[in-house]
Amino acid sequence: MDYSDTIGTTATFSAASSSFSQSTPTVVVSPCAACKILRRRCAKDCVLAPYFPPSEPLKFTIAHRVFGASNIIKFLLELPECQRADAVSSLVYEANARTRDPVYGCAGAICRLQMQVSELQAQLAKARADLLNLQCQQAKLRAFVYKETSGSPQSNTCFLDHNNAGPLWT
Amino acid sequence: MDYSDTIGTTATFSAASSSFSQSTPTVVVSPCAACKILRRRCAKDCVLAPYFPPSEPLKFTIAHRVFGASNIIKFLLELPECQRADAVSSLVYEANARTRDPVYGCAGAICRLQMQVSELQAQLAKARADLLNLQCQQAKLRAFVYKETSGSPQSNTCFLDHNNAGPLWT
Repeated sequence: MDYSDTIGTTATFSAASSSFSQSTPTVVVSPCAACKILRRRCAKDCVLAPYFPPSEPLKFTIAHRVFGASNIIKFLLELPECQRADAVSSLVYEANARTRDPVYGCAGAICRLQMQVSELQAQLAKARADLLNLQCQQAKLRAFVYKETSGSPQSNTCFLDHNNAGPLWT
Repeated sequence: MDYSDTIGTTATFSAASSSFSQSTPTVVVSPCAACKILRRRCAKDCVLAPYFPPSEPLKFTIAHRVFGASNIIKFLLELPECQRADAVSSLVYEANARTRDPVYGCAGAICRLQMQVSELQAQLAKARADLLNLQCQQAKLRAFVYKETSGSPQSNTCFLDHNNAGPLWT
């Protein structure tokens, strides 16, 4: 179905849409946000209608501005119906990102997240190296304490409990 | 300048482009990849030419398939020239992501990176908590060792050097 053929051929669906649908059964009572914005007839099998309800016109406006209506329809028709809602969500998300950041869009967010991942990986590697170092020091200390207290069973060595001093991450 | 008006009005630029440019000074010798693919005249002030050289036709093909030529031109014209190269790079990056993953595109990559950041933050928080716990245990041990060895200066307590046992991250 070529939706682009009908773009601009119908006037409006606002006030007259309800009575108009009486004589043309293929037109739904309330056109979807996409057809309303594109000023075209919203057929019963409109591929955009399930994902762009009339209550959310901004959702289509933003996606339309970045990808164009014909591209959005092309993307959806290339996917099985069960994946189309997710595809529309991701397209709207990307279009929002491009609107907020016209230079970098989603790619900018990906770049920032990749840098954050790198920084966190470096911090985690350092924290784990510090832990190993501290565990090594503690093993030496513990050996020393056991040696010093081996002849005095009354010594207060309860903090050497292995439940506390064992490996700290697995 | 409305580039969309000229789309499809020119035949090809392949073999005849060099001689054609002799009589029409506004046409460059080699059309950019965008104009070649769109089969239109590549003017000297073509807004796409600096970013879509004839040597990289795939770059424009992919971006064109996802955003459409008129949208790409619109995005570029809304930006100062110094930001256009970055904008084209990000558009091509996003178009590649959408081609590889038609359902989630760049949004999928962002979702995966956000999950990775959350996991790394949780691992880092745990590693730091473990470090604090271990430092607390070591402080107790150290106090005990100092108490036990205070009367025996010959004891081998060199591993209690503060350079090794101080705070491990700052």
